[in-house]
Amino acid sequence: MSDAPAPPDLLSASKRELEEGAAFTPRFGPDGLIICVTRAAEDGEILMVAYMNAEALRLTLTTGEAHYWSRSRQSIWRKGATSGQTQKVREIRADCDQDALLLTIEAGGDGGACHTGRRSCFYRRLSETGDGETVLLFDQA
Amino acid sequence: MSDAPAPPDLLSASKRELEEGAAFTPRFGPDGLIICVTRAAEDGEILMVAYMNAEALRLTLTTGEAHYWSRSRQSIWRKGATSGQTQKVREIRADCDQDALLLTIEAGGDGGACHTGRRSCFYRRLSETGDGETVLLFDQA
Repeated sequence: MSDAPAPPDLLSASKRELEEGAAFTPRFGPDGLIICVTRAAEDGEILMVAYMNAEALRLTLTTGEAHYWSRSRQSIWRKGATSGQTQKVREIRADCDQDALLLTIEAGGDGGACHTGRRSCFYRRLSETGDGETVLLFDQA
Repeated sequence: MSDAPAPPDLLSASKRELEEGAAFTPRFGPDGLIICVTRAAEDGEILMVAYMNAEALRLTLTTGEAHYWSRSRQSIWRKGATSGQTQKVREIRADCDQDALLLTIEAGGDGGACHTGRRSCFYRRLSETGDGETVLLFDQA
């Protein structure tokens, strides 16, 4: 990620392989998780941001259905298992340094992804008030 | 994030305020960082995933130019300061539980965001080989 120039000691063969190689070597964080951004195949709308551990990623790859890691419940969760808002994975992308994933999905159920009942989790935008305070305004993503 | 049903003890007034309120109360992680997904205003393409600390967010809000926190360099970085790939912020959205941000930006310079020279950091997609191995294929996002 980023345009930050890498320090010379990171310009190694392994960094080149990470960025320019064909090997998929996802870089999970110290917590064992990798960030996943999920968008709708239909129109590219960003639906949610969540995490996967290695097992959730494995399940996603093998079943074709998005699985995530719930940090609050500390368990793997098949998206839509309770809500019906399943996610059929159409494509997964990795970013340059392989510490973020981008999923493109077809949503089941009502087509939404957010537990609040909205389609996207990003249903509020930041707005400045007259006195310089930042507040959230509700609108569709 | 997610459709995971919240445990009853989280269904508090503060959770409702977080999800349904107008107050912007970004939830930085234990490392002091919040995840940011950045997309192009032009066509909605996902360009990058990065992090902000409170000061990077403040600078982004006050200057209208995206600032991030570089985890590798442990410092704030004004996007494009060295690459010319500046990011004029058109909109910022917060997700349901306010622990992720979605920036919509106009890119300066060559219009790219990735330090590898590509427009998007997500220039590779996962692909299964015949023997069940997952590899990365290069193509445009």
